[in-house]
Amino acid sequence: MATNAYPRTKRGIARREQILRAAEATIGEQGFSAASIADITRQAKTALGTFYIYFSSKEDVFRELVLEMGQLTRGVVTEAVTDAPNRLDAERAGLKAFLRFVAARPSLYRIVEEARFIDSEAYKAYFTSFAKAYAVQLSEAAAAGELRPGDAEVRAWALMGIAKTLGERYVLWDDTSDIDHIVDEAFAMIRDGLAP
Amino acid sequence: MATNAYPRTKRGIARREQILRAAEATIGEQGFSAASIADITRQAKTALGTFYIYFSSKEDVFRELVLEMGQLTRGVVTEAVTDAPNRLDAERAGLKAFLRFVAARPSLYRIVEEARFIDSEAYKAYFTSFAKAYAVQLSEAAAAGELRPGDAEVRAWALMGIAKTLGERYVLWDDTSDIDHIVDEAFAMIRDGLAP
Repeated sequence: MATNAYPRTKRGIARREQILRAAEATIGEQGFSAASIADITRQAKTALGTFYIYFSSKEDVFRELVLEMGQLTRGVVTEAVTDAPNRLDAERAGLKAFLRFVAARPSLYRIVEEARFIDSEAYKAYFTSFAKAYAVQLSEAAAAGELRPGDAEVRAWALMGIAKTLGERYVLWDDTSDIDHIVDEAFAMIRDGLAP
Repeated sequence: MATNAYPRTKRGIARREQILRAAEATIGEQGFSAASIADITRQAKTALGTFYIYFSSKEDVFRELVLEMGQLTRGVVTEAVTDAPNRLDAERAGLKAFLRFVAARPSLYRIVEEARFIDSEAYKAYFTSFAKAYAVQLSEAAAAGELRPGDAEVRAWALMGIAKTLGERYVLWDDTSDIDHIVDEAFAMIRDGLAP
């Protein structure tokens, strides 16, 4: 299924964006199966037909949201760790930025998790590409003596697992959590381990 | 929706079990929405009507599978850690047992993850109850000096996140992984942290 052409006019770009945000809200809240294209255009306050100018199907707009989440997460985390003096500080800053991003865009988090069942190739590609870049950074940091030596790929997946699960438990399920406290506690374990 | 009565005869118990295993295979492979009750009974080699003797709906059999996964995972992990001389060794043994269980029952793992979208209350209940019991053990171990002090609940969720994510990446997606190596590397991080 071909993705329809990206709009060239300012108005077109704005309308496409409006539909994307409506899809984020609608699919994030109702889930992929329950959310219809009519629900999305109603939320976007556009005619049903307008959807098809920009997207070929619900699957198409969904894939776009998964891609967007990937770019946004990377952007947010990369920006947060830019000023970190070393990799450990970067881990802490990255975890905090990720949890704050989940709080700001809970629907995008749910959409990526639902992708596992709707578009499993997009889901795998999303996390595999993220993990690959992450492992390179961990590997370089270990080579520079900033981290204890170890398998950077396993570490990348383990750290992503921590971030995803804390995001679900302490942000999506409970928006009253003290994110700073969660980050402090998780980071203490990541830095020093559980051994007494 | 009421769950139908649990069978009393040997034959009834065996048929119910046959349908459950067929539901595990069918829903685990096709996903909840795509898998029909007809697919399940075909796989179970029983008549369509037989399904309704034991379960009231597809949601009902699904909920039963999520509950079952909870009991099985706890059983497998509890048994694996029984002989561990201390909590750190228990963490290693529990992680290894969990990954081996995912390898043995990949469909059950997928079903629990899909529960997030099909029956989110069952999903939350599953992980919250697991985390609660886990946190008690971590808390007692820290009090006994077997672990560095810290927030046991945050640790429980972080450790569950590691196990879930490694299970997906290194077991579900790639059944050629060296599970012992994955456990060694993840456990080294859990025990000693990443600080050099």
